[in-house]
Amino acid sequence: MVSEKFIKFKSPGGDKAVWGIVNGNKCRHIEGTPYSKYDRTGRESSIDEIEIISPVSPTKIICIGLNYTDHAAELGMELPEEPLFFLKAPSAVIGSGRNIIKPPGCDRLDYEAELGIVIKKRCKNVSEGLVRDYILGYTCFNDITARDIQEKESQWAHAKSFDTFAPAGPYIVTGINPGKLRIKLSLNGEIKQESNTANMIFSVYELVSYISENMTLYPGDLITAGTPPGVGQMEIGDRVEVEIENTGKLVNYIE
Amino acid sequence: MVSEKFIKFKSPGGDKAVWGIVNGNKCRHIEGTPYSKYDRTGRESSIDEIEIISPVSPTKIICIGLNYTDHAAELGMELPEEPLFFLKAPSAVIGSGRNIIKPPGCDRLDYEAELGIVIKKRCKNVSEGLVRDYILGYTCFNDITARDIQEKESQWAHAKSFDTFAPAGPYIVTGINPGKLRIKLSLNGEIKQESNTANMIFSVYELVSYISENMTLYPGDLITAGTPPGVGQMEIGDRVEVEIENTGKLVNYIE
Repeated sequence: MVSEKFIKFKSPGGDKAVWGIVNGNKCRHIEGTPYSKYDRTGRESSIDEIEIISPVSPTKIICIGLNYTDHAAELGMELPEEPLFFLKAPSAVIGSGRNIIKPPGCDRLDYEAELGIVIKKRCKNVSEGLVRDYILGYTCFNDITARDIQEKESQWAHAKSFDTFAPAGPYIVTGINPGKLRIKLSLNGEIKQESNTANMIFSVYELVSYISENMTLYPGDLITAGTPPGVGQMEIGDRVEVEIENTGKLVNYIE
Repeated sequence: MVSEKFIKFKSPGGDKAVWGIVNGNKCRHIEGTPYSKYDRTGRESSIDEIEIISPVSPTKIICIGLNYTDHAAELGMELPEEPLFFLKAPSAVIGSGRNIIKPPGCDRLDYEAELGIVIKKRCKNVSEGLVRDYILGYTCFNDITARDIQEKESQWAHAKSFDTFAPAGPYIVTGINPGKLRIKLSLNGEIKQESNTANMIFSVYELVSYISENMTLYPGDLITAGTPPGVGQMEIGDRVEVEIENTGKLVNYIE
C-alpha cells in the first residue's frame, strides 16, 4: 500500500488553501484533494517556505476517553467495556506551528497526545472488518484541556472546546498500519508521554466502526483515539510536540 | 423591526436547496441566503407542495443544560451560577416532517422542547449588550435524548448525537424578541411541556455572549436554550410537536 503525506498550506501570495504531497523537505502541489481524485502538478515548494495550515476541517471531532491500557493502569481504573466519547468543537482546530491560547479563567492547561483518525467518505454502520476503506489516514492530535474547568463541570465540551484547543497535523498520512505506532509527547524537549498504539484498549478499526453505529461520519471528520499515561500541565511560553511514528510531528506553542 | 420566516426546501424536481420567505400558506423563493443579501424572486410555491428541509446547517450545536427556573424547581435543583453546555453532532440534524429514528439499544427515547438560536455572523467575545446583531433568528428545536444511555455514561454526546436526534425548524424567524415566548411540546396531541422563555435562568443574549467568550461562533451555528419541565418518553409511531410563539411548529414522528 502506497503511503503519502498530505499537507495543506496557504497558496504563496494568496489566501487559498492548497494541498500538497510531502517528499523529504519538498512539497509537490496537487490539484484536487486527497478525499477524491488528484493530480500532481509541476509545482514544488520547500516545506520551510510554505505556511502550513491544519490538514483537517472536520464537521465533527469525536474524542475517545480512556483508551490506553497503560493509562488505565496509571489511573487505577478498570478497562471500559465500550468506548467513551465526547465531542470537541471544530472551531478549535489549528495547524502545526500555531499558538495554543490559554484562555482567561483557566488555571491549568493540559496536553494530551493522541492519534487522529481522518474519515475518507460517508460512513454509517460499517463493520470493523470493512472500516479501513473509510479511513483516509492519520494525523497527530493534541487534546488540549482546561483541566480546572473540566474538574468543575460534569460535561467536558466546555473545558476542551476553547479556540486553539484542537491542534492537528502537520500531515494526513495514508497507507500506514495504525496498530503499532510509537506515540510520544515532549514539553520543551522533555519527554512526558511515551507509549504505542498497540496499547490501545479499542483498536482504530473498532473505534471507527463503533462510532459509525452511532452517527454518520463524513469526509474529514476526525476521531481521536485517546491519550497514553503522563498527561500534564503547560505554561505560557512552552513548546509542545506530539510525535507519532510514520505520522509526523505536531509542534505548538503556548500563548 | 421586520420579522420574516425563512424556510429551506428542495427545489421542485431538483436536489438543490432553495431558500424562501413564508407568507401565510405561500413561500416566495429568494436568491441568496438570509445570512447575507438576498432578493425576492417572482417565483412562489404553496407550502404544502414543497419538501421542507432543516433551515439550519450548523458547524456546531451547543446545547444548554438546566436553564428554566420551573424545570430546576421540578428537579429540586439549585440554579446554576454559569450556563452548563454540551455539544451535539451536526450530523443529527433533520427538518420538520422527518422521522426520528429510535436506535437499536435505546430503551428510552425522550423529547426536550427548546428554543434554537441561529447565529448570523462570526461571533467571538461579544458582550450581552451587543450580541443581538450576531443572531439571525430563532427556530424550534427538539433535543432528542436516549435517556437510558445518558444515565449510564458520564458524557452526554453519545446519548444525544444519534442520527435524527436534532430536529430543527420549520423556519428561522427573524426580528422577534426572544425574551417572552410561549413554548410547548405535544405528544400525540397531548400537551407535555408548557412554559415561557421568560422563565429562562440565563437569557438568550446572556447565553450567546457567554458561549462567544469560550469559542468562535460561525454563521448557522445553533445554540439551544434548554428545556422547560415535563420531559418524557416517546414510542415508535408517536407524533411529537414543538411549538414556540411566533416561531412555528416543528413536527416529527418516531420510527
